[in-house]
Amino acid sequence: MNETDNLIGRRGLMLVLSSPSGAGKTSIARRLLEEDAALEMSVSATTRKRRPGEVEGQDYHFVDRDSFHIMINNREFLEYARVFDHYYGTPEGAVMTALDSGRDVLFDIDWQGTQQIADAKREDLVSVFILPPSTRDLEHRLTKRAQDSAEVVAARMAKASDEISHYREYDYIIVNQDIDVSVTSVKAILTAERLKRDRQVGLTNFVKRLRAGQ
Amino acid sequence: MNETDNLIGRRGLMLVLSSPSGAGKTSIARRLLEEDAALEMSVSATTRKRRPGEVEGQDYHFVDRDSFHIMINNREFLEYARVFDHYYGTPEGAVMTALDSGRDVLFDIDWQGTQQIADAKREDLVSVFILPPSTRDLEHRLTKRAQDSAEVVAARMAKASDEISHYREYDYIIVNQDIDVSVTSVKAILTAERLKRDRQVGLTNFVKRLRAGQ
Repeated sequence: MNETDNLIGRRGLMLVLSSPSGAGKTSIARRLLEEDAALEMSVSATTRKRRPGEVEGQDYHFVDRDSFHIMINNREFLEYARVFDHYYGTPEGAVMTALDSGRDVLFDIDWQGTQQIADAKREDLVSVFILPPSTRDLEHRLTKRAQDSAEVVAARMAKASDEISHYREYDYIIVNQDIDVSVTSVKAILTAERLKRDRQVGLTNFVKRLRAGQ
Repeated sequence: MNETDNLIGRRGLMLVLSSPSGAGKTSIARRLLEEDAALEMSVSATTRKRRPGEVEGQDYHFVDRDSFHIMINNREFLEYARVFDHYYGTPEGAVMTALDSGRDVLFDIDWQGTQQIADAKREDLVSVFILPPSTRDLEHRLTKRAQDSAEVVAARMAKASDEISHYREYDYIIVNQDIDVSVTSVKAILTAERLKRDRQVGLTNFVKRLRAGQ
């Protein structure tokens, strides 16, 4: 929270972080959630089974396939996707409640989800694409285990390259050379976007009082 | 400079700070110039006489009235205005040279100058409007001397109110409750705007190399 928040009141924003896997996005997201009290993680609905340790409503909303399809038909999702045999989606209601209260919501989604959100709610979306600093760096991070075959690593690299090809659809680009610099960069983006005129929903009244000499 | 600058190269931006007089803009601008090495002040041309202590090319470019009119006719100004008997204007050439080299240029101009720049070079413009936190605060700052009459202060307040009425034409709004918070806010805006995809002019080549596995 900065002081402008207190005086004027603002609408929250949807912060989307996307990147090829291996570019360090998950570590950046974790740090942001720890260090920014106004930011919360979006909780997806999914049709896949709950795994040991996962908490309903915190890790996911676990729903059956019929319920998920009803939610699709009712247009309750900001974005959804089928990944192999399971569906994943972001229910719009909870996100809009957060934004209306001036809280920001973080999304860790790919370019397809980002496009769906952009189509639905462009004015609330702030999109950031994280790039690896070099192919060598990416390859190093994608080689998870020493026994990974050259083919497996090559397939991951090809997938990363496909994802990277969508960087033009994002507002901001961060090359993740250093996690601390990258976290600071995303925080600056959040600070700046919160100061955008359009998000300061109490401005009209604030300026009216100011000009009336109150 | 952040690390992304070094890797990719970026186009500079024009940072415009506007505010009613008495809102603290000049102090914020001075701090920014001291603390951000990539930011430089725009140097205006003017037809008014050089005052003792002023340095040609640093405080102003001092030109005669005929030269100024030739510059107007040659469309050499990003913006210009007549203030009482003198002309003031921003020559475009030096600013574009700075932006092309990845340096940012700070402008301390009013809403009319900002509109002219927006018409000429919208994509390079980042505009910030500084508001006072309250009428009482503004009045306090506009009462420069104890002997100022109520009429003089009232006239200054009316002028400030007119200027405030243009806040809607700006990208970002900062309520200057605390100079340190406000300086930090403008710095965050600079950091964020430098990370905008469109300003990272080397991105296409960088991504090409990344996807080619180089």
